[in-house]
Amino acid sequence: MSYIKNRWYCAAWGHEVVRDPFTRTLLNEKVVLYRTEQGHPVALSNVCPHRFAPMHQGRLRGDDIECPYHGLRFSPDGACALNPHGSMIPPGLRLKSYPVIDRYAMVWIWMGEADEADPALIPEFPAHDDGGYKTVGGMIPVKGSYQLVADNLLDLSHTQFLHPILVVPDDPETRVEHDILQDGDTITTIYNQRNTRPFGFTGLIWPDAPERLDGLSGVRWDAPANMLLKLHFVSRDPGDDRELRIWGAELVTPETETSCHYFWSASRNFRLDDDVFGQQLGDAIANVFRFEDGAMIAEVQANMGDETDLIAMRPVILPTDQAAIRARRIVGKLLRAEQNRKGEPKQVMAQL
Amino acid sequence: MSYIKNRWYCAAWGHEVVRDPFTRTLLNEKVVLYRTEQGHPVALSNVCPHRFAPMHQGRLRGDDIECPYHGLRFSPDGACALNPHGSMIPPGLRLKSYPVIDRYAMVWIWMGEADEADPALIPEFPAHDDGGYKTVGGMIPVKGSYQLVADNLLDLSHTQFLHPILVVPDDPETRVEHDILQDGDTITTIYNQRNTRPFGFTGLIWPDAPERLDGLSGVRWDAPANMLLKLHFVSRDPGDDRELRIWGAELVTPETETSCHYFWSASRNFRLDDDVFGQQLGDAIANVFRFEDGAMIAEVQANMGDETDLIAMRPVILPTDQAAIRARRIVGKLLRAEQNRKGEPKQVMAQL
Amino acid sequence: MSYIKNRWYCAAWGHEVVRDPFTRTLLNEKVVLYRTEQGHPVALSNVCPHRFAPMHQGRLRGDDIECPYHGLRFSPDGACALNPHGSMIPPGLRLKSYPVIDRYAMVWIWMGEADEADPALIPEFPAHDDGGYKTVGGMIPVKGSYQLVADNLLDLSHTQFLHPILVVPDDPETRVEHDILQDGDTITTIYNQRNTRPFGFTGLIWPDAPERLDGLSGVRWDAPANMLLKLHFVSRDPGDDRELRIWGAELVTPETETSCHYFWSASRNFRLDDDVFGQQLGDAIANVFRFEDGAMIAEVQANMGDETDLIAMRPVILPTDQAAIRARRIVGKLLRAEQNRKGEPKQVMAQL
Repeated sequence: MSYIKNRWYCAAWGHEVVRDPFTRTLLNEKVVLYRTEQGHPVALSNVCPHRFAPMHQGRLRGDDIECPYHGLRFSPDGACALNPHGSMIPPGLRLKSYPVIDRYAMVWIWMGEADEADPALIPEFPAHDDGGYKTVGGMIPVKGSYQLVADNLLDLSHTQFLHPILVVPDDPETRVEHDILQDGDTITTIYNQRNTRPFGFTGLIWPDAPERLDGLSGVRWDAPANMLLKLHFVSRDPGDDRELRIWGAELVTPETETSCHYFWSASRNFRLDDDVFGQQLGDAIANVFRFEDGAMIAEVQANMGDETDLIAMRPVILPTDQAAIRARRIVGKLLRAEQNRKGEPKQVMAQL
Repeated sequence: MSYIKNRWYCAAWGHEVVRDPFTRTLLNEKVVLYRTEQGHPVALSNVCPHRFAPMHQGRLRGDDIECPYHGLRFSPDGACALNPHGSMIPPGLRLKSYPVIDRYAMVWIWMGEADEADPALIPEFPAHDDGGYKTVGGMIPVKGSYQLVADNLLDLSHTQFLHPILVVPDDPETRVEHDILQDGDTITTIYNQRNTRPFGFTGLIWPDAPERLDGLSGVRWDAPANMLLKLHFVSRDPGDDRELRIWGAELVTPETETSCHYFWSASRNFRLDDDVFGQQLGDAIANVFRFEDGAMIAEVQANMGDETDLIAMRPVILPTDQAAIRARRIVGKLLRAEQNRKGEPKQVMAQL
Repeated sequence: MSYIKNRWYCAAWGHEVVRDPFTRTLLNEKVVLYRTEQGHPVALSNVCPHRFAPMHQGRLRGDDIECPYHGLRFSPDGACALNPHGSMIPPGLRLKSYPVIDRYAMVWIWMGEADEADPALIPEFPAHDDGGYKTVGGMIPVKGSYQLVADNLLDLSHTQFLHPILVVPDDPETRVEHDILQDGDTITTIYNQRNTRPFGFTGLIWPDAPERLDGLSGVRWDAPANMLLKLHFVSRDPGDDRELRIWGAELVTPETETSCHYFWSASRNFRLDDDVFGQQLGDAIANVFRFEDGAMIAEVQANMGDETDLIAMRPVILPTDQAAIRARRIVGKLLRAEQNRKGEPKQVMAQL
């Protein structure tokens, strides 16, 4: 399997990246993450080019990281700063350095061509920085391809079957709206449940909910798999203008071909100062992702064996899969574009 | 490795298959097993053709099973009965359904061509249904090819080395009879130990055994690996007509190429109402199978690596291996017959 | 990966090989080790040629070993001594037998051509038998290629980074001497730290050490990876002739391509009768090997994936790697010589 390289991926929550180096595998590459004395994030290959030792077990020397095995030191730009066994530094002795940036409380990494790492390409997750919201979040390791997580979020109709807390009760008045919008390579799905009675999740977040309400859900997807989840609840009573909003950043970064890091958040516009509630909300959402979605995706991946391309297994396609299919087409298009570009020099030579 | 498809395999003990669906891998296929409201066993593929979700985690809706991920419902015959996301059911949306039948307290499954699933082909294990016997039994997962378990049972001479409780003491009067009979594709081995003194196992089941007795053992084998084990003990005293009979169903069903489900039973004609003794007898037999035969077979498989065909590894063959060799030849013959049949349409076309 | 076959490897500590058979995988071959009634070591294939049962689970019958599954008996020379199921012993029914010898308190094994197993080829480790020394030792399983352990010992400059207890304090007077000598296929490295102050390790072994001392270290390497480690400490005071010597046998035997058995010892010329100190010294050394070197080598192997040839991964080479590179060249040369020899008959035929 190949990965889209020239896009931003979430590497970590900002608070995870501290002075003490730690390692994470991203797109099958082992990366070490730490911060400089000034607080800037650094991402380097975690594999020393000398004897393949794991850099994250080494000490920081100022902003440089020291190999734990033979003491070679590397700067944040990857250059070897010191060979303690002689004055000579062999040419080519460097670690791969990755562009990284702090934004929206996350550390974003660019695994492709460094000179194309334009921060403007990071999709927007403004609630993380918005004083009108309070955010909880975390990261869930998932034993399945990152695309299976995107499939999951791009078809919210599964909530009626997989998530007891999200099941909307049978009611003749309730009406589902489902739509898919596409703007360039950005896909937005809508999954509104109009005129429902309160149910498990609204019971948790809205104890004094009105008798009838609208659940307005949706997902904005950008390649490779950075998603914004909307879970808003509005009173149906025209005299009741209450509206509970939860925005979620759902950022899925491949670890290996059959596993991924699933960064999630929930930013709420209500009960901002109630940290106990915030913890309960976070636990409820994390449990849904971990024990229901995550477990299901792991089972699906297990049923796929080592195959990573769901489409290659010729699944039966339902109308509800349309957004996921479109997202996979965009990923395929971007992958082919990267592969063609790698082929360019050859093509030029062929033209001469 | 390929498996014989057009034969009955034991899928489960009858009491294992209840309303609550459960999954078992048989011949490398993931199967879900449950019972209808009327109590009939159902066996379907456990992999939803939509998103490859594990069906056994879904709920039953009457006799239908509902996919736990997106709620598709399938009938016992495998047809999709409901698509909750629209009226349309895509053509070809079905689960593979397997013929299953309750017989001799077991659920038997046919993994091949459904129209050839003739119940008359199931070998007979009448003691399970015979009021003159009391049966205990279980299932032991074995980390070895199903054929290694058959090899084990088809050469009972190993009992003198592997099973302390079955070792017959050295005695100049004792005489071993060993024979092999074949009737069509059914092989029967005989391993009688004549004129022995009581030993460990007879001490357990026959505390007042006579001073000299005959141990009459044997195995009837039918392809792929459904065996009937005989362990009978008869007094040598002409005035003592006591005879303790144990019949065992030893039904070995491949799970993967290097693991299998070993269903075993012990049906006794004595101490029928003594359930404490029945438990002791069952534990003794299960421990012999699990910790001696099963452990040995796992070691043998480990020494074979990923190889599943013992013969391909060119073992030294002893005269005591003759029954096992014949059984492997019959399996090979049946496999080739199935493979040739698959080739038929091609051959017909070649003749035109 | 191929292994040098026609060299002596350490199979076990002498005291590990007793009457009770045990198994160890050496060069990817499963071997059973035991002693005859006379106390001579025996090494045979652990895989019975009949049904591939693990011989080490069998009983000894005098000097013969009995297969635990069907009771075949084999003599120390590998010949089948008894088939309990008939008088006939099939031709070719034997276990591979390996030359083994007790020397320097270790059992050495020859995995290649038996008629070339010349004990004079075993490198010397005389301190194990020298009354002026007291030896402690053990074996550490390492999850890395045996050559990575040799690399580790052939470049002792890593001690300054990996081993806190061995770090010599910064001191302007301290001077490092590093040299490499080669005599035929034997490599000797020197790593002396002259005029240091006492540090962690000398604190442990030499509480009344002088204020300034020389640490004289070095490694003698013989193919495939049998090493003699020198760790001597000498007072710098001309009137103080104290010298603490530790010799270590560091014998590395491949288990699989990516794991090895690391036999180590420490023979000291001081505090000979202090067994409590001997235990402390052994624990300190074992912990350094196990938790620092061994753990690092496992990380390096993990970073190499399934690759076993470090050089094939094109590491950056430092001057301190020179001894390790030379050792790998000698291994390569010996491997090619063995492979060419195997090819001889073919070449002869081609010449005819």
